[in-house]
Amino acid sequence: MQLDCPMPELDFDIITLGHGSGGLLTNKLLESGVFNLLSNDKLDTHHDGAILSFNGAVGFSTDSFVISPIFFPGGNIGELAVNGTVNDLAMCGAIPQHLSLGFVLEEGLSMADFWQILVSIKSACERAGVQVVTGDTKVVEKGKGDKIFINTTGLGPIHPRADIRMSRIQPGDKVVISGNLATHGVAILSVREGLQFETDIESDTCNLNHTVRALLDEFGPAIHLMRDPTRGGVATVLNELARDTRLGVDIHQPLLPLDEQVEGACEILGLDPLYVANEGIFIAIVEAGQAEAFTSKLRSLEHGENAAVIGEVVDAHPRQVVLSSNIGGKRVVNMPVGEQLPRIC
Amino acid sequence: MQLDCPMPELDFDIITLGHGSGGLLTNKLLESGVFNLLSNDKLDTHHDGAILSFNGAVGFSTDSFVISPIFFPGGNIGELAVNGTVNDLAMCGAIPQHLSLGFVLEEGLSMADFWQILVSIKSACERAGVQVVTGDTKVVEKGKGDKIFINTTGLGPIHPRADIRMSRIQPGDKVVISGNLATHGVAILSVREGLQFETDIESDTCNLNHTVRALLDEFGPAIHLMRDPTRGGVATVLNELARDTRLGVDIHQPLLPLDEQVEGACEILGLDPLYVANEGIFIAIVEAGQAEAFTSKLRSLEHGENAAVIGEVVDAHPRQVVLSSNIGGKRVVNMPVGEQLPRIC
Repeated sequence: MQLDCPMPELDFDIITLGHGSGGLLTNKLLESGVFNLLSNDKLDTHHDGAILSFNGAVGFSTDSFVISPIFFPGGNIGELAVNGTVNDLAMCGAIPQHLSLGFVLEEGLSMADFWQILVSIKSACERAGVQVVTGDTKVVEKGKGDKIFINTTGLGPIHPRADIRMSRIQPGDKVVISGNLATHGVAILSVREGLQFETDIESDTCNLNHTVRALLDEFGPAIHLMRDPTRGGVATVLNELARDTRLGVDIHQPLLPLDEQVEGACEILGLDPLYVANEGIFIAIVEAGQAEAFTSKLRSLEHGENAAVIGEVVDAHPRQVVLSSNIGGKRVVNMPVGEQLPRIC
Repeated sequence: MQLDCPMPELDFDIITLGHGSGGLLTNKLLESGVFNLLSNDKLDTHHDGAILSFNGAVGFSTDSFVISPIFFPGGNIGELAVNGTVNDLAMCGAIPQHLSLGFVLEEGLSMADFWQILVSIKSACERAGVQVVTGDTKVVEKGKGDKIFINTTGLGPIHPRADIRMSRIQPGDKVVISGNLATHGVAILSVREGLQFETDIESDTCNLNHTVRALLDEFGPAIHLMRDPTRGGVATVLNELARDTRLGVDIHQPLLPLDEQVEGACEILGLDPLYVANEGIFIAIVEAGQAEAFTSKLRSLEHGENAAVIGEVVDAHPRQVVLSSNIGGKRVVNMPVGEQLPRIC
């Protein structure tokens, strides 16, 4: 979706410390078009917070985004920040509705860049069906930040059929992945200083909430757990699952959905796609008898066309994730120690 | 309150990029004692978000904290981040209950400093009666942040007697301030590089929610608005009020509660206390007939001993704030343009 939101005429073209003062310049910045762009009845009260209404269980999730570079193939930090929290809520079984937005801007950020990020935030909110209802803007001196950091914190009612809990996982449950691995991480890597390489790979950042909602409508409690394998990749999510359930996880390399270009880039760079950060995919642990129907439904949904069953939860090798490789061998997939790619989200 | 929470024995003494990776080092950092320190049943699920339950109206507020220095007379960035969002919720008429906590750490931050901040967060949460239920930790390279930035986002049910809305303000309403002006700003200024001066002034950062709750219990709808005059000070809050209500505000300099040392420091530094940032105070706009009883009650409550009626809302001079000075003159108090003291919160 391309929004037609030209930047308003302003008498400043970069962010200065004064824009974080809370005084006239802060008001000027917000009223320059920011409030208009994101306008809704709750944000428009301009109070210290928003007043919402809920009846029953509510999901609540926070994430700070520090990705570098802030503009990357397939997106920018603005839509990433909206999609990231929308997806974390969806993983809890929530239907995302409301977001808060906290900016830490570095003095000297160009207003044109900030505007482009704001427009992406607006588009991403529209796609996901959520509203920014409250926010905060701080400015730090040049050299004390890095252009822009964004915190989003989200809220939404829990889907009535959701019962997402680690403790519901059973041996025999299937491990389903909703799409191709490693796309986001490789796209970011391709534009990192000192690492640039020629590729058409774009980040798959997107909102997964509509897809997840359709799955919850149909499969409800057969979905035992959902997780988006962002930082640390699929290997980290599965290792946390094995650790916390004290069960084992088997995954099968031939079943892992992987774009050919991404696979090639991983080979050249010596990266294991299981450890690369993802954005637009999630892992679901699904009751064995429902897993095929679940995956087939998922393949019919937006962002789900490459979904696949990639393994199962097992009694054997508790707390370990074991990969059966393409050539028939088996190896333990450990949790990564440190950072393959810092600041990937 | 001093908590006895010694730092656990760790095999690292500074934060590295790997601690933000989402992998083993992130897990190690969180399980080193962070989760234990802040433990509660919701945080302990270690999911991407928390699941809460509400019935009815809920306040939702966010703030990012970038104060420099991170340790200052009277507190540190940890308790400031808890108190700040607790107070923003209280200003909306909410009873704060749940917080999210988002860290952006700079590589090289000492674990001892981080631990001290975490312990302050725990104490501040206990004082305010709130729980951290979900969180996020990112690490940026040395020189791309400034030790630690904290986002807190909070939730809590709206007090049943609260009806806080700008549109309820009437000519004749009294302007009440809950305590001494400018204390926080002057305390921070006294330790800024290049500006150090000898003083015993400490920040008044504190949680105001218990005080506000007691006032709402007794005065309910007689309280038309509450605001905490943080960045931009009292002048900014009153100017926003005058602008948004299209009414005037009169304030009387002899009635402004001001600590003698703070007043002296402001004189020496050429600062107008009306523009200096505050933390531990709030402004209430109260129905005229209840204002004396309100202020007298407030003076009997925690953090309210210096409360005073400082002015009133008027029909005259719409959209302007006018100060009657100690020597009998009158002057317009404008909204400050930029930043008197950057990164005050």
